[in-house]
Amino acid sequence: MSLGFMASYDPQELRKTAHALADAADRITLSAFRQPSLTVENKDDLGFDPVTRADRAAEAAMRDLLAQIRPDDGIIGEEYGVQPGTSGLTWVLDPIDGTRAYIAGAPTWGTLIAVQDQTGPLFGLIAQPYIGERFEGGFGIADLRRGETRTPLRSRPVACLAEATILTTFPEVGTQADGAAFHRLAQHCRLTRYGLDCYGYGLLALGQVDLVVEAGLNAYDIAAPIAVIEAAGGIVTSWEGETAHHGGRVLAAGSADLHAQALQILTEPGS
Amino acid sequence: MSLGFMASYDPQELRKTAHALADAADRITLSAFRQPSLTVENKDDLGFDPVTRADRAAEAAMRDLLAQIRPDDGIIGEEYGVQPGTSGLTWVLDPIDGTRAYIAGAPTWGTLIAVQDQTGPLFGLIAQPYIGERFEGGFGIADLRRGETRTPLRSRPVACLAEATILTTFPEVGTQADGAAFHRLAQHCRLTRYGLDCYGYGLLALGQVDLVVEAGLNAYDIAAPIAVIEAAGGIVTSWEGETAHHGGRVLAAGSADLHAQALQILTEPGS
Repeated sequence: MSLGFMASYDPQELRKTAHALADAADRITLSAFRQPSLTVENKDDLGFDPVTRADRAAEAAMRDLLAQIRPDDGIIGEEYGVQPGTSGLTWVLDPIDGTRAYIAGAPTWGTLIAVQDQTGPLFGLIAQPYIGERFEGGFGIADLRRGETRTPLRSRPVACLAEATILTTFPEVGTQADGAAFHRLAQHCRLTRYGLDCYGYGLLALGQVDLVVEAGLNAYDIAAPIAVIEAAGGIVTSWEGETAHHGGRVLAAGSADLHAQALQILTEPGS
Repeated sequence: MSLGFMASYDPQELRKTAHALADAADRITLSAFRQPSLTVENKDDLGFDPVTRADRAAEAAMRDLLAQIRPDDGIIGEEYGVQPGTSGLTWVLDPIDGTRAYIAGAPTWGTLIAVQDQTGPLFGLIAQPYIGERFEGGFGIADLRRGETRTPLRSRPVACLAEATILTTFPEVGTQADGAAFHRLAQHCRLTRYGLDCYGYGLLALGQVDLVVEAGLNAYDIAAPIAVIEAAGGIVTSWEGETAHHGGRVLAAGSADLHAQALQILTEPGS
């Protein structure tokens, strides 16, 4: 692995910045959530890929704040793309992960904020402001915070797939072959649930579920979940068993053993 | 319609009782939610139908309270069955609707409490205590309450299926034929979401989504949602267009017009 030059940073400063970014996003996302004024546009000519003014305004607010307090860092964001930096650190921002849940009024969307260097995510936040929860992981921290309550994040090591709860957001799960592989794996598991978007990664870090399988992700969908889940003792890779922070097809598991069992079924030749 | 004898009652007294029942259930369901001590049993020899001590204890607590303050009313509950009454009123209780969500740590389960006479539900509550929300409807009330915040419930009348958001909990939706009918309908809609259990009915009453379609329901799954949705201006029937409070296959819609459009597709001969 080539490390290039090493970014130098103050972990406390970066963590404080991440929470300040979440605060800035919360004000915008919450003020539009479930409001009649919420305007939904479609980004996809062939299908339905919703975006709201809240997505754009929340990312813009986070970028404005970074321009003020961390002007040398790079940014990768869902709505406004890539802005290179010079510090060796990059903020990876998804203002509303789960816009479909957001426009349906369901409280399972989240704001994803990660800071990474060339090796991958260092620290991440999954913020669900309507419920008032922040899952955070990295720099020696692995916590769910809600108001004054702090719950340690610790993924659970179930022994086998037959005891596992598995999540994905859309039952189709990417391509037809991806979907077939997911459902082959889900048939080995005790319980399958759909529709939770990034909230599912938080539940895995909290030791409530065991596997999250997704396809077609972007970097901004997965950087923060990786930081949170790894801090909680879990593991996140691509379906090829490699680094997942660039997105694509992702397998998150509560333990390395369960991850290996799931990966074997995901990658076996389809029936 | 044969009314039999008319139950006489004080609406304020019944509403107060419903909230007291929810308070009793909340204490038990919240104390076990996401706790390592949560024990899951399987009610189904052939599959996985989870029940927890919290389901049973919460229903027992509600029954104990009714025995004290409303001893003449009947009870229908998920865990302890039917107890006939003499007042003409029956409480319909589901201590945890969405036990699968509950054991996965997802905050989309709820406690369902309805009171009905021989004509159907009079008043209902959908309580989600982790978020702190209660959707209530009946006796001239249609509100979402969260702490001191009261949001009026009003279902939205979208013009056509192409603008509609449709929900169901399990992508399979009952039998194979039921599932095929659901997915035929969903293809006409703008957005399909899964996994919300009773919370989806609350979102319909709140005007956030437009259709909820389920199959294989019991009376205790649907009595409270009917009261809440009807109070908010929506409509709930069976897939045959008839009374739904006994359960079975259920179609809930934000307006009578959308309901008619959806019913036509659900009942057309399968392709």
